[in-house]
Order: sequence, then C-alpha cells, then structure tokens
Amino acid sequence: MNLRDLDTPALILDRTRLQANAKTMTDHINRLGANLRPHMKTAKSVEVAHIATQGNTGGITVSTLKEAEYFNAAGMSDITYAVGMAPGKIGRANALVAAGADLTVITDNLIVAQAIAQEGRGLNVLIEIDCGDKRGGMLASDAAVIKIARELAAAPGVLFRGVLTHAGHSYDCRTTDELADMAEHERAVAVAAAERIVAAGIDCPVVSVGSTPTARFARNLAGVTEVRAGVYMFADLFQAGIGACTKDVMAISVLATVIGHRPDLDGGKLLIDAGGLSLSKDRSTAALDTDCGYGLLADAHSGALIPGIAVTAVNQEHGHVTAPGGGTIPYDRLAVGSLVRIYVNHVCMTAAAYGAYHVVDGEGGDIVETWERCNGW
Amino acid sequence: MNLRDLDTPALILDRTRLQANAKTMTDHINRLGANLRPHMKTAKSVEVAHIATQGNTGGITVSTLKEAEYFNAAGMSDITYAVGMAPGKIGRANALVAAGADLTVITDNLIVAQAIAQEGRGLNVLIEIDCGDKRGGMLASDAAVIKIARELAAAPGVLFRGVLTHAGHSYDCRTTDELADMAEHERAVAVAAAERIVAAGIDCPVVSVGSTPTARFARNLAGVTEVRAGVYMFADLFQAGIGACTKDVMAISVLATVIGHRPDLDGGKLLIDAGGLSLSKDRSTAALDTDCGYGLLADAHSGALIPGIAVTAVNQEHGHVTAPGGGTIPYDRLAVGSLVRIYVNHVCMTAAAYGAYHVVDGEGGDIVETWERCNGW
Repeated sequence: MNLRDLDTPALILDRTRLQANAKTMTDHINRLGANLRPHMKTAKSVEVAHIATQGNTGGITVSTLKEAEYFNAAGMSDITYAVGMAPGKIGRANALVAAGADLTVITDNLIVAQAIAQEGRGLNVLIEIDCGDKRGGMLASDAAVIKIARELAAAPGVLFRGVLTHAGHSYDCRTTDELADMAEHERAVAVAAAERIVAAGIDCPVVSVGSTPTARFARNLAGVTEVRAGVYMFADLFQAGIGACTKDVMAISVLATVIGHRPDLDGGKLLIDAGGLSLSKDRSTAALDTDCGYGLLADAHSGALIPGIAVTAVNQEHGHVTAPGGGTIPYDRLAVGSLVRIYVNHVCMTAAAYGAYHVVDGEGGDIVETWERCNGW
Repeated sequence: MNLRDLDTPALILDRTRLQANAKTMTDHINRLGANLRPHMKTAKSVEVAHIATQGNTGGITVSTLKEAEYFNAAGMSDITYAVGMAPGKIGRANALVAAGADLTVITDNLIVAQAIAQEGRGLNVLIEIDCGDKRGGMLASDAAVIKIARELAAAPGVLFRGVLTHAGHSYDCRTTDELADMAEHERAVAVAAAERIVAAGIDCPVVSVGSTPTARFARNLAGVTEVRAGVYMFADLFQAGIGACTKDVMAISVLATVIGHRPDLDGGKLLIDAGGLSLSKDRSTAALDTDCGYGLLADAHSGALIPGIAVTAVNQEHGHVTAPGGGTIPYDRLAVGSLVRIYVNHVCMTAAAYGAYHVVDGEGGDIVETWERCNGW
C-alpha cells in the first residue's frame, strides 16, 4: 500500500524521523542523569510509546484518564496523569490501580488533596508547583505545600511521592539561550519545592519537570529525577519557529488532495481537501516571525517542503493555498487531483482529528503500518 | 442518568433548542417557496438529521464522503456532497450509488468534469459557482460553465442537474441588512448562472444556494430550488456575534469540571478540564466586537450564561477562565470539582472532538439519549 491508495485527508507519520527524534531526546536526558517519562498526549498510540520509551524506564505521562486506561490495558502501567485531579475522577483513577496501573496523579489544592487522601486507593500523588507558567500549581514557597504533603503522607490509602512542574511559558521564549535559562529556572523551582518538603521531614523521592523546549535545552538536571516531554517525538512548525527543532525532523503531516485551481483570483489560489477539521484551527506561528498560516505544503512522496506557498485560510473541509510572499503558485506541479502533504503549526491539535496514523519510513510513500490513536476522554 | 454522572469533558446537546432552531429555519425557507436541504457537516448524526429534515423533502447535504456513507447506510439516501469533487474520489462516490444513494457531487473544473463524465456511474452533478466567496466555484459569466454543463449533459453515465453556490463571505457581514443583501446577491448569481445554462439549451433543474446567515435573512428565493445550511441547528457564539441568532438558542455546549483556583494570580484565574482539544482552537469571535475568547461559561444544569467570565486561554487539556472585563471570578459558585458548561465560538469545530452527544431537554440536566457522531473522513 502506498500514499496514493489512501482516502484524503489522512494522517502520515514518518517512523524514521520519529525514531531519530525519540533517541535524541532520550540520549540527552540520560546524559544529564535524569529519566525521560515521555508524554503521550500528542501521540496517543502504543506503538509510538514503545519507540519513545526505548532507553528509558518505561514510565509514561498522559493527559487524560482515557489514555491511562488505554496504555495500562496495553501493558504500559507506570503512568503519571499530569492534569490537576478533580474529586469526581478519583473513582476512575482507583479503578485503574485495581486494573494493575502504577498510577500517579497531581494536585495543587488542599480540598482535592483531602479528597484523594480519603478516597484514593493505591494512588501515588505529586504536588503541582507553578514555576511561572500561571496555569496550575502552587508557588514553591506556599506554606500550604507542606500542609498538603503532610496530609497525603499521613493518608494510609495513598502514597505521597513528590513534586511536579511544567514550564509551559517556555513557549514564549524565542532564543535557545532563553530556553536554556528557562530550563534552569524550571529545575531550580522544582528542586527548591522538594527541598522544603524534605526539610519538613517528609520523603520526596520524585522531582518531575518538563516541556519539550526546556527538555531539549536543559544543561543541568541536578536534583531532578524525571523529565516529561511529548511533542519532541513529532515536532511541528511552532517548535521549529522557536528553535526547539529544525523543520527537517517534523515527523507528522497531513496528506491532502488538490481539489481546485483559482488562477482567476487576485494572487491566485489553490484549494485542498484539508481544512479546519483536518489541520486544526491552531495559529500558534502567527505569534512568531515565521508565520506559517495553517501549514506549509510538501511533496506528497518525499515529504520535502515546497517553498513559497502556505495554507493561509481554512473552512471546515477546504484549505486555501496562496503564495503569501507574492510568488507563483505551482499549478502545474500541483494539478487538480494530485496529492500533497501539509506540515502543521501544532501537531497535538491536528493529530487529534484522526483515528490512526499511516506510517511511512522516510521517502517513497509506502505505508508500512497503520497505528491506532486513543482520542477523546 | 444526569450530567453529574458524566466523565468530563463531554458534549451536551439541548434537544428542545435544536428542535426549535430546525423548525424556525424550515418554516422560513418553505415560506419562501424553496426546499431546505440541511447540511449535516456540523451535526454528523442521524438522529439530528431526522429532526432537521422534518417538514422538508428529506434530502441532506454532507461535507465528507464518510458522512454520505453513514447517512446512506441509515436510509437517508438523497445526498449532496458539497465539496469540490476530486478524480480520485469518483470510485468511492460510484460505490455509494451502487449502495442505493441518490448522490449529487459538484465540480468547478473541466478536467474533473471530464473524469466524472467518463468514470461516473449514476452520479448527479452540479456546477459550483463562486458568488464572491473566493473559495471554490466558477464565475457565473465564465464561458467554461456552458462547456462543462454540455460535457456532463452529454455523458451517458451521469446526470447534469444544475448549479450550486455558497455565500461563505456572509460571515464577513455585521448587520442583518448586510446579510439580507448578501442573501439576495447569492440568489441572483445562482439564478443568473442557471439561466445562462438554460439559454444554451441544457436542462438545469437544480439551483442550490446556502449558508446559515444568508438562509436566515433571505427575503426572496425566486428561482432557487433548495437552500443548504447547517450550523443554524445548533448556533454558536460567532453566529450570535454576527446577528444570525441570539445566544439563548445555542443548543451545544461542553460540560467541564473546575480543576483549579488561582486567586493568587493577578486578576485571578479558574482552571477547567476543557482546553484546546475539547473546545477547539477556533477564535472566530476575535474578529467581532463581542470577543468571547474560546468560550463563555454557563450553569451546568440550566445552561444559563454566567456573566463576566470567559475561557481566555487554552492548553491541550486546560481552559483558563478569567474575568476579561475586570470583574470578579465567582470562586464560591464554581468550587473545585463543580461542573460548568461552555458555549463555544464555532460549534462545527468543537463537536468534531467528540464521538457522541449527550442529549438533554432544556433545564435540569437529565440525559435523555446518547447520539453517536460520524467523525473523520
């Protein structure tokens, strides 16, 4: 089977690039003395998880309890659910433990911690620390950190394990020096929180940090036990735009068909059958110097970028391709009916529209495998 | 079963509002002498289609061949696939006809028309006309319109049926007068194209127009045989923002759980477990006077809006709720663990993240049915 046999739009995964990206990050984190706990929120695939955990201890991070259930059922049982726990989800988490999962949950809230302490059955718990992202988490200096740690450590049904932070604001960095500084800040805040807990006489064996940009540019992980990152496996135009990767490592693209030519319009336009649903409405590169619209086009078979054109507007099932710099649209190369691939701004958003990956190995376009995804909640 | 028994995030559909929205549009189009062919691209559900086709002839519009296959298998066989046909999709369309579908496809391209004429087996075909949207379509005055109509009319295996246009640029209108003018323009262009074809001696029994805003504000449909519209069934914040509906008819919302409070941050913040994947990254209301962020919050059980707060940022599984006008965040009402509903910018994008609708009837929160959706391609 080849790309040309697929119905479009379809999600294409280049396994060769995925394997190289996974190895680069694993080697880097291991060299710094920490363990990589790959975040499966982007991949949502057991086959990808097997590649991403090679060379690590096998533990993974997830963003939904559905992912946790899916990976546990596939035998990957060491799981951290890295979204703030809600009291109403404790029963579902307990059921995962009963089904064999070594599940870790997180909280930043005394009332939730008390509910976990009371209702949790075999859950590991981390306290979420805010290192400046201003999403979830407590400040490392907050007196309530010790109070929550103490409540959890004293609860007979759960195991207090440590702290977790996420430098999501690394996505605001624009240079690799800024990213390296952010990685050091993320490390220092997490370690400081852990040291306060230890100083209060409470064991704190886990110090978990992570985001793809900080993981990539961390120079020192002293005191950190594990690093969580996910999008590095696939990379995307936003990661390339902030310097966290190069464009030639992007492993995910959308296969589309050219469905129309509009040379009669001012500047010209080409239409493809990949629109807002198949590419996502994410416009994260709009904040960068290198605005890539809704995605950049590439040769369907080689995956090599086609310069000068981009998907600059979308409707639900239409992508509008123009030459934003005023160049020429290659109508001859992209005849109506021909295939094209699109690299996207934010692969986590795009991949979620698809039930499966069609896997290729580098150039040529032969589909070597099909891997299912675990979408939804 | 009640809302409080659902895992969050979850997609909620208010059937009472859906039924009222469907009836309002059907009555309006019938009063103007045309038939409504509801567009199922938003709903992707047989149960919704049964409600939307009540009072009409039963024909529907779809945005993917997968939808066509799904609806045809459910006995709704009169289907117009309203995205420009690609040569590579003719086989799949023929298979639908072989499976009993009365399928109509569209084209704006001579090469595609020739492929359809040659390879089509029982397909109905419309020529797509551009009435100013600058997406797909030929200008009504284009000499090639007659050439394509003639090729298709002469082909033994297919049936040339007429013209189709879509005033997608009605989404740029900001007043109901502008929308009424746009509806008249859409009508006039489609009718002019049909008249040219008839003048060339070719039958043109179908004149198809539509978009939710123009359908809603059309005052005259003389010469039009059918109107396509879809999002009117559900409505959303963008439709309300351009005056195509009021906010109290919105029938779709996302049920979420409050997972964090951050009164320590400047201005305060509340976190919910509905982020970019569950709400979508659509920011269409940013272009309007009434920017609604990624969505507005409502009481979980009644569906009534909670004034003053909005989802102003999202990560993959986190929604950040702030008070953009500088007001107070009702932390007491929205305690950690409590449920809340979110109305969204663009319901077509949001609904696609979910496999099913949880159906309520007005206030109270009892789940009366669960309806599956047909996502993907």
